[in-house]
Parts: sequence; C-alpha cells; structure tokens
Amino acid sequence: MRADNRKNDELRPIHIETEYIKHPEGSVLISVGETKVICNATVEERVPPFMRGQGKGWITAEYAMLPRATEQRNIRESSKGKVSGRTMEIQRLIGRALRSVIDLEQLGERTIWIDCDVIQADGGTRTASITGAFVALVLALRKIVEQKKIQKLPIKDFLAATSVGIDKNEGVILDLNYIEDSSAEVDMNVVMTGSGQFIELQGTGEEATFSREQLNELLDIAEIGIEQLIAKQKEVLGEI
Amino acid sequence: MRADNRKNDELRPIHIETEYIKHPEGSVLISVGETKVICNATVEERVPPFMRGQGKGWITAEYAMLPRATEQRNIRESSKGKVSGRTMEIQRLIGRALRSVIDLEQLGERTIWIDCDVIQADGGTRTASITGAFVALVLALRKIVEQKKIQKLPIKDFLAATSVGIDKNEGVILDLNYIEDSSAEVDMNVVMTGSGQFIELQGTGEEATFSREQLNELLDIAEIGIEQLIAKQKEVLGEI
Amino acid sequence: MRADNRKNDELRPIHIETEYIKHPEGSVLISVGETKVICNATVEERVPPFMRGQGKGWITAEYAMLPRATEQRNIRESSKGKVSGRTMEIQRLIGRALRSVIDLEQLGERTIWIDCDVIQADGGTRTASITGAFVALVLALRKIVEQKKIQKLPIKDFLAATSVGIDKNEGVILDLNYIEDSSAEVDMNVVMTGSGQFIELQGTGEEATFSREQLNELLDIAEIGIEQLIAKQKEVLGEI
Amino acid sequence: MRADNRKNDELRPIHIETEYIKHPEGSVLISVGETKVICNATVEERVPPFMRGQGKGWITAEYAMLPRATEQRNIRESSKGKVSGRTMEIQRLIGRALRSVIDLEQLGERTIWIDCDVIQADGGTRTASITGAFVALVLALRKIVEQKKIQKLPIKDFLAATSVGIDKNEGVILDLNYIEDSSAEVDMNVVMTGSGQFIELQGTGEEATFSREQLNELLDIAEIGIEQLIAKQKEVLGEI
Amino acid sequence: MRADNRKNDELRPIHIETEYIKHPEGSVLISVGETKVICNATVEERVPPFMRGQGKGWITAEYAMLPRATEQRNIRESSKGKVSGRTMEIQRLIGRALRSVIDLEQLGERTIWIDCDVIQADGGTRTASITGAFVALVLALRKIVEQKKIQKLPIKDFLAATSVGIDKNEGVILDLNYIEDSSAEVDMNVVMTGSGQFIELQGTGEEATFSREQLNELLDIAEIGIEQLIAKQKEVLGEI
Amino acid sequence: MRADNRKNDELRPIHIETEYIKHPEGSVLISVGETKVICNATVEERVPPFMRGQGKGWITAEYAMLPRATEQRNIRESSKGKVSGRTMEIQRLIGRALRSVIDLEQLGERTIWIDCDVIQADGGTRTASITGAFVALVLALRKIVEQKKIQKLPIKDFLAATSVGIDKNEGVILDLNYIEDSSAEVDMNVVMTGSGQFIELQGTGEEATFSREQLNELLDIAEIGIEQLIAKQKEVLGEI
Repeated sequence: MRADNRKNDELRPIHIETEYIKHPEGSVLISVGETKVICNATVEERVPPFMRGQGKGWITAEYAMLPRATEQRNIRESSKGKVSGRTMEIQRLIGRALRSVIDLEQLGERTIWIDCDVIQADGGTRTASITGAFVALVLALRKIVEQKKIQKLPIKDFLAATSVGIDKNEGVILDLNYIEDSSAEVDMNVVMTGSGQFIELQGTGEEATFSREQLNELLDIAEIGIEQLIAKQKEVLGEI
Repeated sequence: MRADNRKNDELRPIHIETEYIKHPEGSVLISVGETKVICNATVEERVPPFMRGQGKGWITAEYAMLPRATEQRNIRESSKGKVSGRTMEIQRLIGRALRSVIDLEQLGERTIWIDCDVIQADGGTRTASITGAFVALVLALRKIVEQKKIQKLPIKDFLAATSVGIDKNEGVILDLNYIEDSSAEVDMNVVMTGSGQFIELQGTGEEATFSREQLNELLDIAEIGIEQLIAKQKEVLGEI
Repeated sequence: MRADNRKNDELRPIHIETEYIKHPEGSVLISVGETKVICNATVEERVPPFMRGQGKGWITAEYAMLPRATEQRNIRESSKGKVSGRTMEIQRLIGRALRSVIDLEQLGERTIWIDCDVIQADGGTRTASITGAFVALVLALRKIVEQKKIQKLPIKDFLAATSVGIDKNEGVILDLNYIEDSSAEVDMNVVMTGSGQFIELQGTGEEATFSREQLNELLDIAEIGIEQLIAKQKEVLGEI
Repeated sequence: MRADNRKNDELRPIHIETEYIKHPEGSVLISVGETKVICNATVEERVPPFMRGQGKGWITAEYAMLPRATEQRNIRESSKGKVSGRTMEIQRLIGRALRSVIDLEQLGERTIWIDCDVIQADGGTRTASITGAFVALVLALRKIVEQKKIQKLPIKDFLAATSVGIDKNEGVILDLNYIEDSSAEVDMNVVMTGSGQFIELQGTGEEATFSREQLNELLDIAEIGIEQLIAKQKEVLGEI
Repeated sequence: MRADNRKNDELRPIHIETEYIKHPEGSVLISVGETKVICNATVEERVPPFMRGQGKGWITAEYAMLPRATEQRNIRESSKGKVSGRTMEIQRLIGRALRSVIDLEQLGERTIWIDCDVIQADGGTRTASITGAFVALVLALRKIVEQKKIQKLPIKDFLAATSVGIDKNEGVILDLNYIEDSSAEVDMNVVMTGSGQFIELQGTGEEATFSREQLNELLDIAEIGIEQLIAKQKEVLGEI
Repeated sequence: MRADNRKNDELRPIHIETEYIKHPEGSVLISVGETKVICNATVEERVPPFMRGQGKGWITAEYAMLPRATEQRNIRESSKGKVSGRTMEIQRLIGRALRSVIDLEQLGERTIWIDCDVIQADGGTRTASITGAFVALVLALRKIVEQKKIQKLPIKDFLAATSVGIDKNEGVILDLNYIEDSSAEVDMNVVMTGSGQFIELQGTGEEATFSREQLNELLDIAEIGIEQLIAKQKEVLGEI
C-alpha cells in the first residue's frame, strides 16, 4: 500500500476554487492533495514583439514558489537575480501545453499571461499548475467573450496534466506526492486533452531506465488520472 | 464619508488565520480589508556571517507581491533580475521593526526569516505585513521554546503597524485603502508597541507638506488603530 | 558634553561651495562637519516614459559614496553589479523631498537629475545631500530661467534636512556625526521647508522605542537645525 | 520523399572525429548531417558542494551555440548576461541522460564536465550533443582508468539520442533537419541505451496533439535510429 | 633555441581554411601553431543606434573561448553572467583594428559582426583572431559586392597582427606560444597594414620595464612576422 | 597654435594635493588642466585568493567617473549593473602599471587598493589617474613603513603617464585635452619610470595609421612630458 493509503491508480483529492483573487480576469486556487497553486490569468491587449502583425494571440506562463512552500526554505529567485533552469523548464512547459488547445488566431492579437504561484508544495506542482491554469485561462477567455472582443471561446479541447512513475516497491503509480517523487526510479509527466490525445510526454529515468512495456503501463494509468481531472474541471467550468 | 462608508478613525475588517501553510514554523494569512498577505516565519539554526560569534540572533524579512496582486499585472522581480527600491525599503522596514521588540541575545545564534507575500493588494500592504509577520514570528518562537532550544519567549512587547494620511476632502484618515492612498496628500506609516511606544514613523508629503498640528492629529488617529490591531493579535495569540 | 564639544542643539560647521565642477548646470560641494558631498544638477530636455505627454517635469536623484569615503573601504556598487537597499532608500528620499517644493507643471517636460556623491562620510550623508542638492537644483533652475525656457523659478519654498537622535547619555541631540549615529537609540531624519512645514519624517528606534514626548523633543530640536541650514542656503543663493 | 531524399526511417550521415581538441580528457567533433557539435569532457578531481562526502561522482553538462551556428546570428548569452530557458533545458537533459548510464559510486568523488558547443546547426543539436558527449565521456573515463584512479570503466551501457516527429505530408519521420523540425506537428526526442531501454522521452505537440498509435509509430522508428547511432559509437570506441 | 625549435624571428605554421561554417557570409578557421580560432563575419543591414543616419557603416567584434580551449577548463562567461575585462579588451581591440582599414562610408549603413571563437588556445589568440577576422571580413564584403549592394570593396589595405616579446634567455622573440607568453618579461601586440603602417601597438612590461632600444628591436621583428602573415592572407584571398 | 595656447610639447598645469580625504592611507587630488581625479590608496591586510600563501602582495585599481564629470551626463555603472569595457581596460592598466614599480615580495601579503574617481574630465583621465595614483600609493606605503609592518619602501622607481597624439593640423602633440583627443588621428598612452624605461605603451590609429617615424616623434615628446610629471611628483613626495 502507498504511504497515504491510496491505490496505485488513485489520484489525491482535487479541489478547484475559482475567483480566488479579485483582480485577475481568471483566478483559481487548485489543491492536489497537499499541493496548492494559485493560478491567475491576465489579459493583455497586445502580443510580444515577435508575434506582432500576424493577427494571432499568444499565451505565456510564469511559475514560482513561495520560499516556504517547501519543507526547507528556498532562496527567492528575485534575490538570486535569476530564474533557475527548473523554473524556466516548467514555465515553458505550461505555456506550450496551454497554447496547444487554444485557437490563437481566434484569440486575436492579445496575450494571456498565466501566473502559477505554488504556495504549498507536495509533489506534482507543475502538473497541478497546468490543470489549474487551464481553468483560469477558460475563465479569462469567457470574460473576453462577454466583453464581445471575440465571438466565441477559442478553445479546442479540455486539458489536464498528471504525473506517473515507477516505485521500486509499488511498481507503476499515479499522481506522486513529494516522498514518492523523491524515490521514484522513473518519473513521467503527461499532458492530455479531453479527447484522450497527448500534448506532452516527459519521461525520465532517474539514474535508471525503463522498457517499452513499462512505458505502456505508465500511459494506461496516466489516462485514468487525466480523465478524472478533466471531469473535475467540467464540474467547475461546465461544458465549453 | 469615505468611499467604503468607514469613519475617519475606523480600521478595515481584520482577519488573522494561523497555520495557513503547513511547512513553516509560523504561518499566517492576514486580511486587512481586501489586502491579503501570507506571512511565513522560518527558523534557521545559524546567523548571517556579519553576526557570527556574538551569541545573538537575527531577524530578516523578505517581501514580494504576486504579479496579479494588483489591478495591473506587475512584472516579477525574478524576471527583471533585480529587486526594486520599493521592495528593499519595505523588507528593511519589516525586519527592523520586528527586531526592535525581540531580545536577540535571548534568541541565541539563530535567524528567523520572515516572508511576506502579498497575494491581493488594496493599500497598506507593508503595514499589514508587519502586523501579520509579528504573529507568525511569535508562533515560530513558541516552536523553539517547545523544542526547549530556548527557555522563554524572547519577546519584549506586542507590535503592529498601520497607515494614516491626509485626504484633501476627508482630512486625517486611518488605514487607507488603495484609492485613498493614491490621492492622499500626506501618507504616514506608524509602527508601535503594545505599550504605546513608537518604533518607526515614516511620514511623507506627496508633493505636499504638513504642519506640526497635522502631525499630531495623524499620530492620535494612528494610536487608535494600533490599539485595535494589537487587540486582534491578542485574540489570536493570547498573552505572551 | 558631546565628543566634539557641541551643545545638544548645535549643528556642525556648514560650508556650501558653488560651481564646484564645471560641466553641471548646478554644482555644489557641501560640508557638514567632516561629511562632504558633491551635489550636481543636470538638466535633461525630456521626461521618463511614465511622465510623457503630461506637460509636467520630473526630478530624480542618485546617491553614491566613493569606496573610501568611510573608515573601512566599501566595495563599489558597480563592481557588485547592483545598488544596495540603503542606496535606493536614500535616492528615493532625496528625489521625493526635492519634488515636494518644486512646481513640476511650471518646470515643463524636462528632468532634473540630481547626483549626490559622498566623497567623505562622517554621519548625516543623506541629510547633507538633501540640503546641498536643493542649492544645486536652484542653480540649475536659474540657468533654465536665464535661457528663457521657463519664465520664473518653479520653486515653492526653501528645503533642508537634518538628523536628530536620542543618545543614551546626552539625551536628544542635533546633527549626529558617525560615532553618535552608531550608538544612538533613536535616529530621525527630518526634511522641512523654509516656512517650517514637514516634508518627510523618518524616525526609527534602533532595537529601541520612543515615546510621544521624546518625539516632540526631537522635532523641537530639528526645527532649530533646519532654520540655520536654510539661513546658510539663503546666504549662498539670496532670496528665490 | 523528404527534401534531402532520405527515407522516413533514415538517419543523416554520421561522423564522429575523436581527439578533436588537444587539451580535454575526451574530445569529439560529431556531425549529424549538417549539424556539427564539439563535445569536450573535462575531469575535475572534486564534486560540487551538494555532493561532497557521499563518495559519489557527478556529471554535469553545458551547451552553447556559436552566434553564427544558425542562419540568423544569435546574440551571445554572455553578452545578454544570462542563459536562456532553452539552453538550460538542454544542458539539464544532457547531464541527466549521461548520469543514467554511469555508476557514480564507481566513478568516485570527481566531476566530469561535458561541454557541447554547436558550431553549425541544422536541427537535432541536443540529440547530436548527447550522442557525441557519450563518446567524449567514455574517452575521458578511459583516461582515469589508465591513470589507475579507478579500476574499471564505470559505464553501465551505451547511450544515444535522436529525434522523431510527425510531418503533415510525410507522416512519421526520423532525425529531423532544421526545415523539417520547424514545420513538424509533433516533435519527440528519445534517449535510449544499447540494450534498448528508454532513458528519456520528450514528446511535444507543437500546437497539435498526437494519439497513442502515433506515439507507438514514433517509438518504433526511434529505435531504428538509436541502434544505428550506437553501432557508429561502437565503431569509434570499440566494446566497453 | 626556443622550445619548439623555432628561430627568434620565426612564426609558427599558419593555416587559413575558408568557408569553414556554412551560414556566415565569411567564415574562416585560422591556425597559428596550436592556436585555432573560428572567425565568422555576419552582415546586418543596419547600424547600431549611435551610428544611425550618418550614412556610414560599422564593424564590431566579439571574442570568446570554448571552456576547454585551455589547459584548465574556464567557466563560461554566460554562466558567470558577465563578460570579463580581458574579453572586453580583446573584442574592442579587434573591432578597432578592423575598422581602421575599412572605408566605413563606402560600406554604407550596415554592420559587419565579427565573431572570433577560440576552440584551442596556445598563446596569441587575440592576434590570430585579428589576422583571421580580416580574411572573414573580406569574404563577407565580397558577398555584398556580388549582391551589388555596394560597388567595390571598401578596403583600404591588408591587416594582420602578431605578438612579440622579450624572454629572459632568448631575448626578443616573435609569435609567442602559451609557455613563452607566460614567462615573457615584455609582451607586445602589434597590428600593421600591408603597407607597413602601425594601427595598434600595445606593449606591456609584466612587472618589468623596457628601453627605447628594446622597443626598436621588438618592432623590427614584428614587421618580419606581419609581412609573412599578410603574404599568407594574399595566398587565400588573392589581391583586393 | 593649440586651442589653449600651449606649445606642442607643453603639458597642462599640474597640481597634486595630498591628504585630500581623511580616511584613506594615501589620498591625492590631482589636476591636469581641467581634469581632476581623486586617487585614494587603501591598505588591506590580506591578498586575493589566487595570491594566498605566496608571501607576495598585490596592487589592484578601480576607476570610475562621477556621472557629470563630463559635458553630457553618463549613466552610473552601478545603475547599469555592469562595468563597461572602457572602465575595465583602464583599471587593468592602472593596476598593471603600478605593480611594475613595486617589489611585491617586499610588500608582503597585503593588498593596496587604488581608487581613481574622476570628478571632472577634460581628456587624459587614465594617465592623470596613474600619475596621481602613484603618489597616493607611496603615501600609503609610507604609512605601512611607519607602522613598522615592513622595513623599507618597496618601490623600485618613480612612475608617471601621459598621452601623446597626432593632430591633423598641429602634428605631434603632448597631453591632449578632450577636444584634441576627440579629433586626434593617433592617440598614444605612455607609462614610464623615473629612469626613462617604458612600462606600457598603447598607441591606436583612430580609423588611421601611423609610421615608424611618427612613432619615434611621439615617443620623444612623451619623454619630455613624463620627466616633468615625475619632477612634480618629487616636489610633493621628496626622494623615495
């Protein structure tokens, strides 16, 4: 049995609270077990220089942790004067994933900024960020539709993310918490759409390797998790 | 009447939620009206290099805002690669204020890190940070006492902060929200102890000046606010 | 008696030398006792981006110390690659103070840069900077009037600054030198106008507190000092 | 047919030149088609601080491009004063991949630095870097064995990487050049061992998605490429 | 005899390979003994802001070393986040030297970027960079002439550089390798034109001094080296 | 005739004021015409890490300009967050020049920091810095001798620097002011000892070239200037 009595293919409890912060166009507090992320979506009526004049929109993400989101306090990246490689990797992933389900031409020449701020971390912060950010993004896009800036939601499909991994004792497991993540031999982040297509797959053997068979088991269990996460998003958002 | 129907010497509603985040030794979410700040206190068993070998402790603070804590999104200081002058001024103020009510020798050679992260801003974020940080600090110090690392709480007095100002129409007002703060002619931050002593006084004429009489009115009203804030802290903390 | 035989309400000797450096529109070397600051004012015929199109001017200040202005050599901020919190606090204070006595609309869309470079430090460098910078500013503004770019001096009042503090033995004292400043229990910087109004008040208990009565004594003595500083400015500048 | 007349499952010509630069312990120039990368391995007789005292070694990688490795000149990251997110992602990937086939305990407390400098880029620079870096790493490790610092090569398996993708017209293709990479709907980097196990899998739908079936086709074709790359490494290195 | 059996006035073997990298407008690999530098020239159809509207072109250079170009691995300047004083000195020298033989008005409002990347270092990297960069520059300028953007080559003369020095045992020597450079008492870099005029002369006593007579000997031997280097350039480039 | 009525081989008026600032071990204000530089020497009782344990001392220099030392205000390097290439070149030159006349073994394991801060610039700031810094250095070294930390002055010779150049109309001229420096075709900085030996020679054709004959004329005139500068240093310092 897993430390928190979950079955191998069981997600941690998921809560999605909307309108968490008052200023952003879309604001969500997502909890995946003890992992808590504030996901805010901001609409800006212009695109970055490299996108100008193409009639298309842009979605970009930033990710950070409060210094004491973790067991040990982390030095702020603003104090260090630079953003770490890990942070950059995560924010590039979040932005790329969200862009893949949005019709950027329909969005028009505007940028949606997604800010994912982890206030408490217990594993899976990047996948929780993607799942929560999608909800914040839809809320912000609905505002633009309400304001009649665009005619319909430029969303092609639902989108959620989870992690799967291989534990020495448990085998293939879904939605790893911090302890499980630290000791897993293989760690894989999976981003999928509501129609069961892959958007992003990042699997890493941590000083270990994995076979094609293990990959298939990991993907089977990931699909189970993603379906439940998207069901949760639908509860909050209704159909889109 | 003030925009939110408050009297000139009336604070906004105050809420202090403890144990907000699970990892820190002391964790508080303070709301002062619509201003919300997470204040986390971390105990580190060593002091910075310039303090080593003196047998004394240290308290240092960091302050930040989520990008969308405000009406307009702010660029992250980690992305800019440097901390702004305003942020430095605020975190130096918070640290200095907290150190003045702590017996640093009694604390022993350890550092308490105070992290104030504004998740929603509506004026008075630095004074709310000080008021909340004091509670988080006491909670963290109680942990050290419980762990028998020190014998008693090294706290000399309660500590809270508020802002007062002069509004062109309303005159002298207490606890300015963002709209009031933006248009005030004089803006003053006051940090006081439970016994009514000043710790810090920062008054600024914003392209305006103020007389000795106006200063006295500002201080009278500040004392009213501080008393109520400290009463609120005592509700949460009990006597210390 | 104070170490340098001054009375508690006595300033150190003040000297203000104008036209110290040949290039700036206004240039002053101010000495307050052993503290020496070069204050240069530069006129730039445009305003920073956030001020454009408002028909108003801007005044901004920068402050620095030569590495060996102090007893111990300080590392240059250019070598460290960043400006310290203390420096930022001081340059924000100088700029804010100067702006409060200038009619920015009358100044028109131009910026006055104030550079305060401490070549020798013995306490009170920020207040000496403000007192000297005001003189350099007036000199630069007179140049603009002479060039008929504006019709009259856009100055609302004289402006000077001094420090006051509470010494364990001496009690309330005026114009602290470095030794006094290092051991003072309370330290307060006061910026006032020629007509006796406050512009900025920054009082700090250094690991100590102060009462309302002590505050009043500090302000009484500060007023004495400011009057003498402004008299000195009038000697140099004549009426404005 | 693909633009360069290759079949869908055909690699570009591979050349691996050893002892390319005289100073490094291992030095390789790898060409994969028009992509050319200098891979240098440096042995340092200590580990980074977070690894000290564990009796284990460390392998870390850095990746860069000459400014004119590409069609358009890129600004140097040293001139920009920071390393881009893309660079960090790539160097973390290279380091992680190499570490997974090395027995770090057998390596002992030393670090192998891998420098991958792309002198000419035509797609697949990160996978060419991994394939070449493995060769440079083995050469450097052989030096340590020759010097009798360790008894045998601490290598668990061969290691190579390639890219696969889905082209709108061609379908699933192996080893994308720059033109193919720019227009591919799905892009996947695969790192595998000599025994056919996965080490890293990074698949991304570029504003597109992919199905489980497509994933399987991509992996089939990747395995073909990896086998040939490892055969090439064996030609150069012999058995290990 | 010198360590590599050269006579005091003998250059190391020189090789200049053109079209080394495919993308740049001019690309050269120059070897001076064991020192190897890739020199790439890029044409950009605009000038930096400070040059705009003058109808003149600009030539600017950047210089870097691969981390393991040297016996000991150097930390990348991109990782350090800043360019060293030595690097800046060298790239300013290369740019200045090249500009002195180019008719910038004839070049028109465009910039030629020169990138000198040392892949293997054995002394004299800056002078090898200048000698190689001149060839890359001519190749790039010929492209512009071929494209009929300008009518003729805007080149006033050939240009090459070498180092001379004073060795405690050997006396005055030409083209110092790394070992010789490290122990030389006087070190001088000389940049000259095809017609034997000086462009730049940088002589330094390394904790030593030199007389007017020694200076003359150094210059005599430098002229011998420059003549041979320019002969080599002419072999590669033909007349210009 | 030159603009300021000087003869071609005439220096501008030189003044050297010692004990200019009270804290440094050696402090000098040097004026060369309208160029004014504060040169401070600081003794630190340790050497930088790369020098430790060799029993030798070190001399290092920093150079800066006040923002308004020049006709146009310059942005502070501390605000830009980095030191320019020009500044680095100059401070490396100053340090190297001073080290060449000091017996570093006799100095013992201590560092002399030389700070050259230009408060007013009118050409020749780097050569004025060297000439003034030598005086400040001797004063600081005398302090160490007085304190009996070393037995005698570890100085091998006097040291001064000047600039020479070629003006289109005037021909070869000595000690160029800003206007002359801006239009000179050739610009050369010469650092020499009291016994007439060269320490450093940096000659540059500014988009021009110079012959061996012109070089000889430049050096003849430089020797005249250096002799007079050293005579001035001897007036201030006496024999050493």
